[in-house]
Amino acid sequence: MDRKEFRDLADPAEAHETIASLSLEAGIDRVSLEDARGRVLVSRLDAELDVPGFDRASLDGYALRARDTFGADEADPARLSVAGTVHAGQEPDVSLGEGQAAEISTGAVMPDGADAMVPIERIDAANGAAGDAAPGTILVRTSVAPGDNVMFAGADVAAGERALGPGARITPRDIGLLSALGIDEIPVRGRPRVGIVSTGDELVRPGEDVDSARGEIYDVNSYTIAAGVEDAGGEAALYPHAGDDREEMERVLRTAADECDLVLSSGSTSASAVDVIYRVIEDGGELLLHGVSVKPGKPMLVGRLSESAYVGLPGYPVSAMMVFRSFVAPAIRSAAGLPEPAAARVTGRMAREERYGEGRLRLMPVGLIQSGSDSATSSDDQPEGDTLVYPVDKGSGATTSLAQADGVVEVDPETDYLEAGESVTVQLFSPDVHPPALLGVGEDDPTMNRLLDRLENARYLSVGSRPALRRLRDGVPDVAVIAGPIERAIDAAELGGWGREWGLIVKPGNPDEIEGLSDLIERDIRFVNRTNDSGTRTSLDRLLAERSHDEGVARNDLEDAIDGYGVGLRAHESPARTVIASDADAGLGLAETADRLDLAFVPLGTHRVRLLANPDRLEKPEMRELEEMLAAEAFPPGTEFQRE
Amino acid sequence: MDRKEFRDLADPAEAHETIASLSLEAGIDRVSLEDARGRVLVSRLDAELDVPGFDRASLDGYALRARDTFGADEADPARLSVAGTVHAGQEPDVSLGEGQAAEISTGAVMPDGADAMVPIERIDAANGAAGDAAPGTILVRTSVAPGDNVMFAGADVAAGERALGPGARITPRDIGLLSALGIDEIPVRGRPRVGIVSTGDELVRPGEDVDSARGEIYDVNSYTIAAGVEDAGGEAALYPHAGDDREEMERVLRTAADECDLVLSSGSTSASAVDVIYRVIEDGGELLLHGVSVKPGKPMLVGRLSESAYVGLPGYPVSAMMVFRSFVAPAIRSAAGLPEPAAARVTGRMAREERYGEGRLRLMPVGLIQSGSDSATSSDDQPEGDTLVYPVDKGSGATTSLAQADGVVEVDPETDYLEAGESVTVQLFSPDVHPPALLGVGEDDPTMNRLLDRLENARYLSVGSRPALRRLRDGVPDVAVIAGPIERAIDAAELGGWGREWGLIVKPGNPDEIEGLSDLIERDIRFVNRTNDSGTRTSLDRLLAERSHDEGVARNDLEDAIDGYGVGLRAHESPARTVIASDADAGLGLAETADRLDLAFVPLGTHRVRLLANPDRLEKPEMRELEEMLAAEAFPPGTEFQRE
Repeated sequence: MDRKEFRDLADPAEAHETIASLSLEAGIDRVSLEDARGRVLVSRLDAELDVPGFDRASLDGYALRARDTFGADEADPARLSVAGTVHAGQEPDVSLGEGQAAEISTGAVMPDGADAMVPIERIDAANGAAGDAAPGTILVRTSVAPGDNVMFAGADVAAGERALGPGARITPRDIGLLSALGIDEIPVRGRPRVGIVSTGDELVRPGEDVDSARGEIYDVNSYTIAAGVEDAGGEAALYPHAGDDREEMERVLRTAADECDLVLSSGSTSASAVDVIYRVIEDGGELLLHGVSVKPGKPMLVGRLSESAYVGLPGYPVSAMMVFRSFVAPAIRSAAGLPEPAAARVTGRMAREERYGEGRLRLMPVGLIQSGSDSATSSDDQPEGDTLVYPVDKGSGATTSLAQADGVVEVDPETDYLEAGESVTVQLFSPDVHPPALLGVGEDDPTMNRLLDRLENARYLSVGSRPALRRLRDGVPDVAVIAGPIERAIDAAELGGWGREWGLIVKPGNPDEIEGLSDLIERDIRFVNRTNDSGTRTSLDRLLAERSHDEGVARNDLEDAIDGYGVGLRAHESPARTVIASDADAGLGLAETADRLDLAFVPLGTHRVRLLANPDRLEKPEMRELEEMLAAEAFPPGTEFQRE
Repeated sequence: MDRKEFRDLADPAEAHETIASLSLEAGIDRVSLEDARGRVLVSRLDAELDVPGFDRASLDGYALRARDTFGADEADPARLSVAGTVHAGQEPDVSLGEGQAAEISTGAVMPDGADAMVPIERIDAANGAAGDAAPGTILVRTSVAPGDNVMFAGADVAAGERALGPGARITPRDIGLLSALGIDEIPVRGRPRVGIVSTGDELVRPGEDVDSARGEIYDVNSYTIAAGVEDAGGEAALYPHAGDDREEMERVLRTAADECDLVLSSGSTSASAVDVIYRVIEDGGELLLHGVSVKPGKPMLVGRLSESAYVGLPGYPVSAMMVFRSFVAPAIRSAAGLPEPAAARVTGRMAREERYGEGRLRLMPVGLIQSGSDSATSSDDQPEGDTLVYPVDKGSGATTSLAQADGVVEVDPETDYLEAGESVTVQLFSPDVHPPALLGVGEDDPTMNRLLDRLENARYLSVGSRPALRRLRDGVPDVAVIAGPIERAIDAAELGGWGREWGLIVKPGNPDEIEGLSDLIERDIRFVNRTNDSGTRTSLDRLLAERSHDEGVARNDLEDAIDGYGVGLRAHESPARTVIASDADAGLGLAETADRLDLAFVPLGTHRVRLLANPDRLEKPEMRELEEMLAAEAFPPGTEFQRE
């Protein structure tokens, strides 16, 4: 067998066909009515009995012979003698002759001789005060036709009728129908059993400790793909982590192949893992495909391991999930007998140009946001405004590339770029995806986080202040959260804001007795900075610039004098955590962070956090809600900071 | 307490508010990652670590100092010495100086001194055949900038960043994010526990035997509502059937109230049940509402039983489910933290006029069908043709009223009638409802049933031949299936058809030696007929009419001579089953039915079953599929029967 990656990448259509050619079916389960919801019926169910099984009174009242009520009305009631009573759940012990009626309760069997019934509201007991009739006599104040207020045997379902067809996905309403037919167990399609094998020495199960110095990371794919398998109607089985030990990996793969209808491995496209897979496949399997012209997901493997189908997914979480979603989930769904989810498509327009042109089908994760409302085009049927589509791409290695996306746009290999404003179709990740009602971007801030907790269905991307301003200018987010000085004018209204104290986070008790910027410049203090994107960094830069101006020292010299000034961490709390780990003596951060992590704090200043609104979106209800929330918190739009 | 139904019915909005005022919340569960899918997060989760936790190589290749590659390209590669190797899951044991590189695998920790990496594809081992460099030396054929092909610590998720907000419904993608953060357990909203108590002496659990003579029926509501509860995010608990024994019912209600967040009773609006409920409520509960201005569902009860919320549902399945769906499910969903399902609305037009005018909000179950395709208005976004909406109302007692419906139209109390063609909004029963692609109505027929099994997503309503013709004239169904003679001309194309043998179904071995119609007329034979709706009955009527003509005997006299001629059963197989039960000697039916139920058969004739197509729908793909299927089965459109 050729152990190299196939030189010619398969077409995505070919990959779909190859996977479809594998049998993932799991046989037939028999499930009780309690467990039937959502399952898929294997074969037609015909009614074996009439529902109801007898002619049934529809109301409380009197069963009678319709002809005896002929001409009766309020003024001239028919007078009938009461021959007996029939309750629900009882066999009638009465048979009606001419001029007779029987008291009957809802759901009871119509007695012999009766062909209609009259509800109690249209009947008077004739032995009332008026005394106009003998006891045991009733007055019927309406006329009825044969069959009135009677549900005939088989009127709901008739014996022999086709009740449910093969392939029906059982709804609560179908469960009602099955109950009515007395059926308490049905044959349904088995859920394909899908074994999941993650490989890689660096992977650690969530809940255990991860050693970053050794390059360990948490195993993202196992649980994510397991959830995807269940979503698609399969049953996921997680196999113990195979690491990179070849014998162990081979053993795990063979076990999974014996026990499952489909084996998915991830990270299995690395050279050493591929070797093992080739070996297992040589030993009684078949390799059908290696390499597909799709991005991400190129190194996908498809084949058979013993009796099981096999798909090798890439190791990067985004690649693994996109390949799973596009190629594997439909096959699982089909084997489970489930249809493609309905209404899972949305049309929108690209928020910005997106270049591509790699000649492979691209599966592009995107987020959605409603642009400004436009009352001229609004109707009950259509949400107001346009849907804007923006690519979410933090790289295939980033889990947030998917967690912060709503769906996928398939860009075909011939498309070199998508224009801004171009209409695209988004496949939502599932029909119950609710794209966010409000999209915020910007600085990571504890106060903002608390406000976000009170907004329903808001998305917030912690990109830092500087990228947030750029995105706001591009018109994508509703709100940008900017901390510290703003260096360039921007056309945006300030919804509100607050001040926050920033400075140096140091060890508890401040053992190095750091008092301010001078200590960093003059003493041998290991400092950790933030990246240029953060507002805290911008404020520190500004402070240093002022000092440079005041003291007549070149700014570069000041920066060089601070050990670590040039090393900026992206994460808001990372400098503080570096101090905790004793890898630094002081880190740039917020008073609130120091407080929360039980560290000491040396204030360097207070800067304003501003919520800047996209001017086209001021009418969005969520925007107003945010504005009101800010007003209620006494976070009004700023004045003095505005002119910085 | 006043034990009468409240005289003033509550407004539906008031009923919603009253139910919303009850607390159904179930506290907080802690679930593992495996069980987190679809659950609702209670409180915000912030990242406690950077993801990745270290600067990470994005590809297989060499880690190096970007400045050492300055100016390098294919023609003029940079030459670096290899100082070591770093694998994924290992702590680097190398630190790079000027002119040095380290071999590195995807996902491994970038060694000290390195600030970029170059993928293996752009590197040549310099100890190749050309011998243009020393061993342990590589040629780098590209220049890179600092950070190229490196994923920095925290680039995916930064420590301190808001990862998921309160109320987030966990998707497989969120599970990826949680995994990446090493979180293996999260706090989620508990599922409201909903106790279901069915009352009524006549109710039998599915799977047990039902005695129709005693008016027993299967308990439809328990399982249906349980499935609805689970659908809405609750946890259903079925309580043993309370019957109409008051003490037992009281005991079951109290137990359910102690154990659940919400108790639902059904059939509890009957007089005796209401008495028990009033008693339990008097004993430490509160009655908040009795009677709502809605149809169906008027007698709904709302209150508290001890610490539990309580809603009393009507006993009729349709009423119970409609009230559950409109009033109870939203409250369960809200307590479970789930949003209203998205995209569960469809706009269509009424297929026919529907009169109403009872001054109550009406919850009208409807079916949906696409009318003819109209290429002028079609687009990728919109399904072709109109969506027709037709009421499905076999009465509140019929389970099929819901099983054969796709959703609900709310008709407000002021609306007296909906015009044919009027636009209405349908709330689908769930977002994954797929309205049928083909709607057939008509005769119950075994051959037709087999054809239907091969059509995907077809709905068939067994209404009989005569009502089917009427419905086809009204333009609602795609196809009408008509057996026997057609008495009125109709504008419809015949897609195909087949003959079937009809006659008398008699006991095995035909012990009464029945040979034909004459035996029914001349001898003392107990016969069971079908209703006028069925094609078999039409054929029998025609045969009798011919005999009347041939023999010069009045048709009425012939009919009167047959014991049971006037009693028509609706259900296709019911006459045969009446014979099995020895309640009749002969029943009208099909040869195929007799065969299947091991009964003897006396043929009276053969008639044609015709598939008549709605002339406006001939272009529907499903119609063509059906036509092709008929052709393949050698069931071509008929000729000789056409002119009957």
